[in-house]
Amino acid sequence: MVVSYDGTAYCGFQIQPRDHTVQQELERAIYVLTGERVKVISSGRTDAGVHAKAQVINFLTECIIPIDRWCFAVNTRLPRDIVVHKASEAPLNFHSRHHAKRKTYRYTIQRSKIPDVFYRHTRFHHPTRLDLSEMQNGLSHLVGEHDFSAFCSARTPVGSHVRTIYEATMEFIAEPSSGDGQAGVIHIYITGNGFLYNMVRIIVGTLLQIGQGKRSGVEMNQILLSGDRNKAGPTAMAHGLTLWEVSY
Amino acid sequence: MVVSYDGTAYCGFQIQPRDHTVQQELERAIYVLTGERVKVISSGRTDAGVHAKAQVINFLTECIIPIDRWCFAVNTRLPRDIVVHKASEAPLNFHSRHHAKRKTYRYTIQRSKIPDVFYRHTRFHHPTRLDLSEMQNGLSHLVGEHDFSAFCSARTPVGSHVRTIYEATMEFIAEPSSGDGQAGVIHIYITGNGFLYNMVRIIVGTLLQIGQGKRSGVEMNQILLSGDRNKAGPTAMAHGLTLWEVSY
Repeated sequence: MVVSYDGTAYCGFQIQPRDHTVQQELERAIYVLTGERVKVISSGRTDAGVHAKAQVINFLTECIIPIDRWCFAVNTRLPRDIVVHKASEAPLNFHSRHHAKRKTYRYTIQRSKIPDVFYRHTRFHHPTRLDLSEMQNGLSHLVGEHDFSAFCSARTPVGSHVRTIYEATMEFIAEPSSGDGQAGVIHIYITGNGFLYNMVRIIVGTLLQIGQGKRSGVEMNQILLSGDRNKAGPTAMAHGLTLWEVSY
Repeated sequence: MVVSYDGTAYCGFQIQPRDHTVQQELERAIYVLTGERVKVISSGRTDAGVHAKAQVINFLTECIIPIDRWCFAVNTRLPRDIVVHKASEAPLNFHSRHHAKRKTYRYTIQRSKIPDVFYRHTRFHHPTRLDLSEMQNGLSHLVGEHDFSAFCSARTPVGSHVRTIYEATMEFIAEPSSGDGQAGVIHIYITGNGFLYNMVRIIVGTLLQIGQGKRSGVEMNQILLSGDRNKAGPTAMAHGLTLWEVSY
């Protein structure tokens, strides 16, 4: 199933003993519908406060509800901040994480003096000026196959830190009423074959330092080569991040 | 001050004995800032669940905080779903309701099979087809000076029901991935010199019946002439409505 959720109220995707998670709500809704205790597998966990436009999940059921009825049937049993967009039957060996070929994340920054009340849960508010072309420069160094050790949290499990970034783009939509043309919304899209723990948020935290003039765009390359988490910027706030797309 | 708010968590703008309201939060924030118990006057109350992009309020204070500091000072004392965008000094006789010349409301409909989780509090979800050109036709009959008795709640205080609608427009933004071009977002903007209780929501409720093919667009004119609330459609859900702009 392809699922979107507003992560604001959740302690992330994956079930944890005492916390309210998206996985828990999905498994509960499927249980109410089918009477079966299934285990939902996702294309990857998302952190507390992180959203998904199109998370992909799979599970095994013996339920005989026709596939074209699933979407509606599950949605009526889910809270309003989780919505199933699509349901389809998959081969028995399908695994939404292992078989994912490309994933895209979007990080959104509200660049304006005053925050926008309607996007307080989905955009990171940045009140001061940002040098967009220098950020764009920084972003360009990420494309390709690299060891992303400098951009992963210490909590990342041991294993290869080599990932391939296929695309890293930035879009700026200016606020029509903005005086200096500096106010607006910045969307950063990063597509890769996989992501390490906190990788997108550390990249964005570093890009924000570049935008603020604390670092230059080319430093992104030096940080990458260093492989040192301490050289990169802070982990950007979770609520600006959305799992945008997963391809198989 | 020009104020925007997400009305989801509030029982409307105006203070009521036992309910949580936007006015209460504004007066509390101003009290915390100044120590003064002011009475906030708005350009008009909004109902429970209705939002504002640019509500205008006024109040009387003896506080000596410079006017360019007010915005930031009040915002740090407000909950995150209410944000002050602008503060300015006004003549002593200024009254944000009495002196309002034009008000614009926007009503937003999410026209798609599956609701959009990120706009569940700000768009009315309509899963089935709507005839947009017939709705457009219906909307056009509202422009001008009319007695809007057919489009006001029985709870409207006694008095003239004549109002002037200056503009009534509809905008459709198609969903790029929509197969039949029918999915997307519909914004309805209505600008007038004033609005009766529930007027915009009853207009939209009637427009939805027109869009669904239950009535034709020209019936809007007949309903208007009848002056009979029972001839019009139901009151549309509050959460799609936003007080968009107030001019003086």
